[in-house]
Amino acid sequence: MQENKLIEIIKNTLNSKYIDDDCAYLDDLGIVVTQDSLVEDVHFSLDYINPFQLGYKSVAVNLSDIYASGAKAKYLTCSLSLPKYAGENFVKEFYRGAKSVNPTVEIVGGDLTSSNKIFISICAIGSTRGRKISSRSNAKKGYKIITNGVHGSSGCGLELLQRRSNGPQKLIMSHLMPKVDDKLSSTISENITDNYAMIDSSDGLADALYKVSSLSGLCAEIDFDKIPIDEEIKEFDYENKIFFGAEDYKIIAFIPEYFYMYLDEKLYTEIGTMVEKTDEAYIKVKFKDKVKAFTQEYIEKKSFKHFD
Amino acid sequence: MQENKLIEIIKNTLNSKYIDDDCAYLDDLGIVVTQDSLVEDVHFSLDYINPFQLGYKSVAVNLSDIYASGAKAKYLTCSLSLPKYAGENFVKEFYRGAKSVNPTVEIVGGDLTSSNKIFISICAIGSTRGRKISSRSNAKKGYKIITNGVHGSSGCGLELLQRRSNGPQKLIMSHLMPKVDDKLSSTISENITDNYAMIDSSDGLADALYKVSSLSGLCAEIDFDKIPIDEEIKEFDYENKIFFGAEDYKIIAFIPEYFYMYLDEKLYTEIGTMVEKTDEAYIKVKFKDKVKAFTQEYIEKKSFKHFD
Repeated sequence: MQENKLIEIIKNTLNSKYIDDDCAYLDDLGIVVTQDSLVEDVHFSLDYINPFQLGYKSVAVNLSDIYASGAKAKYLTCSLSLPKYAGENFVKEFYRGAKSVNPTVEIVGGDLTSSNKIFISICAIGSTRGRKISSRSNAKKGYKIITNGVHGSSGCGLELLQRRSNGPQKLIMSHLMPKVDDKLSSTISENITDNYAMIDSSDGLADALYKVSSLSGLCAEIDFDKIPIDEEIKEFDYENKIFFGAEDYKIIAFIPEYFYMYLDEKLYTEIGTMVEKTDEAYIKVKFKDKVKAFTQEYIEKKSFKHFD
Repeated sequence: MQENKLIEIIKNTLNSKYIDDDCAYLDDLGIVVTQDSLVEDVHFSLDYINPFQLGYKSVAVNLSDIYASGAKAKYLTCSLSLPKYAGENFVKEFYRGAKSVNPTVEIVGGDLTSSNKIFISICAIGSTRGRKISSRSNAKKGYKIITNGVHGSSGCGLELLQRRSNGPQKLIMSHLMPKVDDKLSSTISENITDNYAMIDSSDGLADALYKVSSLSGLCAEIDFDKIPIDEEIKEFDYENKIFFGAEDYKIIAFIPEYFYMYLDEKLYTEIGTMVEKTDEAYIKVKFKDKVKAFTQEYIEKKSFKHFD
């Protein structure tokens, strides 16, 4: 059973306009809202992540969605379902980690129940006041594609954890405690007047580029050599990890070129341009000696799936 | 391990002012937010609840919290974690049921992951515009205690389901698809100027009365014969079901007596009065021939516990 198929059923049942973006933009209330869950032995294993890191990561993945909308992250609620082996120390460390991601974001509620595995579901709320909110369908021909960090490290870190290898720690930590940062996204949403697209690379760079290019009816043309990476990932099948490794939680923004004048160069790296879609490819990756075209079928086959 | 103990740890770790009420009141954004989870084989079993009813109930328990805050319910996000046995039909029926509780409340997001049991976490958002929001610590001496429906039916319904009995269907349905209603709560919050307390009876009438009387430093004096009930529950240990049966999801409001002038008599039943706390009792229940005093210890021992 495919996640996409189930989401199609939900969209049809609800007849909702909100389901395409990571965050729902609730214009009348001036907020965005997102909810993401982490399930033990599906998204994480206590064999390699500790309760502090788990609290951190559960919050980080939700804040990443808020940042990608352009909103200012404000509040979180957190629902924990815990088996007997996750006791007082687990709860304390989990919440310490949760609080540490962004101390300006307050955890204001949630609930606590028992279960046979650890289930974590977090809801994050952001304020849209004074900001222009992104949409995945807003990219236009000629828009520049920029990002705020390295890609592929988290996937390599996960592989190291699964191999029970001890290093490089930098890669392992990028999987366990991904850095999420709203400097680039806030600068864009507070200053831009044109419609723009923004997304985080939670399910991999290819998935992020595909979602925006398909919803915008365009093709993302990427310079492979411009994609920022940690040098350490070259020991891995790193092209694959960059595009399909998932969980890097970096911002990918699609903005008009003039907007560079508002951006500090340290905030971003340009990795490509949105171009007309002339064939089956939603992404074209330019290497020194060749161009690879990614079709929908190829991307879906290679991308991270929650239902396998 | 006690739920209360874990909540104490969370409160200490977060140092938050928000954790006491069911909803967090986010004044700066003009919203309230709540999140509640339902876990298979902890809160429900597919042996006796169908996917439509489960979708209904998951939403109803969250809307009940919003109603009890006095806010206007607006939006929901819904996170579902599903095992392989919950497929396309489950998802469709679940969302049909979820949508049916209150068609003016829109489901705007959430996520979908795999898991080994069904895990549902719903976040509900309400608008506080033009409304005075309740707090559990706001009851005052002399305030009248009123409710908008019958108590004890859900607990009897659960007992019938567990006994695999077929009736009375009215009681069974009050457990599977509890009616939740914002007429009373909206009328209060839209018209009242004094501070007031309001809560839903999700964990039983005794738990609801105890939470408000302890946080307000008072005692709730209840006339047993005034508590609205379905006649059918008299076949059960119904006093116990009324106070400790849980999951009736009725509104209990604590309001100044003058406010009755704003309320249609059909909207509420008066069941008691807030009085001074003169001994260990947080609740005193007056029967024809006796008075029963409920202490903290007694209430905690008898009330529904998520962690047993």
